[in-house]
Amino acid sequence: MSDKPLFPRVALIGLGLIGSSLSRAMRRAGLAGHIAGHARTAVTRAKVVELGLVDSVHESAAACVGGADLVVICTPVGSYAAVAAEIGKHLKPGAIVSDVGSVKEVVVRDVGPHIPAGVHLVPAHPVAGTEHSGPESGFAELFDGRWTIVTPPSGTDQAAIDKIVALWRGCGSQIEIMEPGHHDLVLAITSHLPHLIAYCIVGTATGLEETTQREVIKFSAGGFRDFTRIAASDPIMWRDVFLNNREAVLEMLGRFSEDLTALQRAIRWGDGDKLQDVFTRTRAIRRGIIDAKQA
Amino acid sequence: MSDKPLFPRVALIGLGLIGSSLSRAMRRAGLAGHIAGHARTAVTRAKVVELGLVDSVHESAAACVGGADLVVICTPVGSYAAVAAEIGKHLKPGAIVSDVGSVKEVVVRDVGPHIPAGVHLVPAHPVAGTEHSGPESGFAELFDGRWTIVTPPSGTDQAAIDKIVALWRGCGSQIEIMEPGHHDLVLAITSHLPHLIAYCIVGTATGLEETTQREVIKFSAGGFRDFTRIAASDPIMWRDVFLNNREAVLEMLGRFSEDLTALQRAIRWGDGDKLQDVFTRTRAIRRGIIDAKQA
Repeated sequence: MSDKPLFPRVALIGLGLIGSSLSRAMRRAGLAGHIAGHARTAVTRAKVVELGLVDSVHESAAACVGGADLVVICTPVGSYAAVAAEIGKHLKPGAIVSDVGSVKEVVVRDVGPHIPAGVHLVPAHPVAGTEHSGPESGFAELFDGRWTIVTPPSGTDQAAIDKIVALWRGCGSQIEIMEPGHHDLVLAITSHLPHLIAYCIVGTATGLEETTQREVIKFSAGGFRDFTRIAASDPIMWRDVFLNNREAVLEMLGRFSEDLTALQRAIRWGDGDKLQDVFTRTRAIRRGIIDAKQA
Repeated sequence: MSDKPLFPRVALIGLGLIGSSLSRAMRRAGLAGHIAGHARTAVTRAKVVELGLVDSVHESAAACVGGADLVVICTPVGSYAAVAAEIGKHLKPGAIVSDVGSVKEVVVRDVGPHIPAGVHLVPAHPVAGTEHSGPESGFAELFDGRWTIVTPPSGTDQAAIDKIVALWRGCGSQIEIMEPGHHDLVLAITSHLPHLIAYCIVGTATGLEETTQREVIKFSAGGFRDFTRIAASDPIMWRDVFLNNREAVLEMLGRFSEDLTALQRAIRWGDGDKLQDVFTRTRAIRRGIIDAKQA
């Protein structure tokens, strides 16, 4: 902890899993002087007060951002345009606006137009999370050793970028700078498609006759339970991800479907060599993930 | 541990993850007098001796089963016919033959014809495992609290069924008796389809351009890494599962593909309500799994 915090005043718009974890991680590292928080519902605000997660809680996002040196939007990306429209004219000159969303082109599109001159927009995405939602689910260590991808639009003030990088380093993250469109493509395969598929197979299982469904739960240790964990993630957040990364998700989904059809054909025709070949090649990428300490 | 073990002599054909875990679990509970083991390769046999996993190691399966009261086939299901043909005439009258395979109709089809009169065939499937293979990966606690599904053909000697049930209870399992065809249907959705999909998406990712592939590894914490764990499972074992549970897997895969196409359509046309509805319903099944203590 230094004598002078990186940001004297921070405003967090949204205090779910990520927002509340960010508050905890900033406090752990002494990165913020005063942390102001906004949550939309009275229930969440009461929970945040009870847990003592921020220094002040605000009913309106506009009031929350007043005087803030850093504003981080931590709500589902579908709400960004409305949030930005509300806070835009209350932002302090020289402030930095950032976010934690899982899609990044949308930030420039929906938030960008509401950012006044002299305020800096530096979108970011901490690639970390759990299947749990809400302020009570957050923890300070969530970002430790994980990657945060920072996606500044071209022409962004370098000092502002450096401060966002310092913020996430201070929260335990490793940093990657990326172009927003490329981010959305990489995350489509590493995060969005896995979630879609997990939601889908769990949905297929819920469509089975009731007896079989009880058995699905009982014998889920055979692989299915890992998918149910992912498919327990926040529905609104994920709805908004898919609505806002359509092109990249459809592209990756197309590739996946082609590959799945090829496997289906191999099963139908008893082509063991094809199956074994695919199942063997996939082991290498697991080793890569273990070597990269992301397992 | 009782004075007299449940089985004075046990033969394990195959000493990979499951076979070696079974040996450890039987020893923990004192269920076997002498455990004889067979592994096909000299490398595995040397490893088994080094780890002291069994009381005697045999180069041939036929020699291994001599005098055994219980024979458990722990090799990939594609090898069952050959294994059964080899050991059939060496089985002791009154012996029980079982297995640990992930598909069960195939056992009656491939092993059944080689079982002499007076020997009992009681197939079983411990629904437990990890992504690691080989004798060094096994551990005695693998089956604790998990389900073992026993699938005796109709007319099987009840005393033989009871002994297999006692074996797996002694190894820490809960027991379910099931008709083999129903087992193969339930496991198609809870285990086989999840593995196929995990292998498929990891395969799709390995097909990307090299730069993106490095990024896939780097940012796998967003969901992808959970699939890579499943997709690191033994290729031969899984090839044989799909070749031997074709009908049920194709049926479940058909349902999954229809559901995935509906989600794809919802993404393409921006149908947020449809996405939110599916993503919300899937949470319930996760709660069921947690309540059933299978999470």
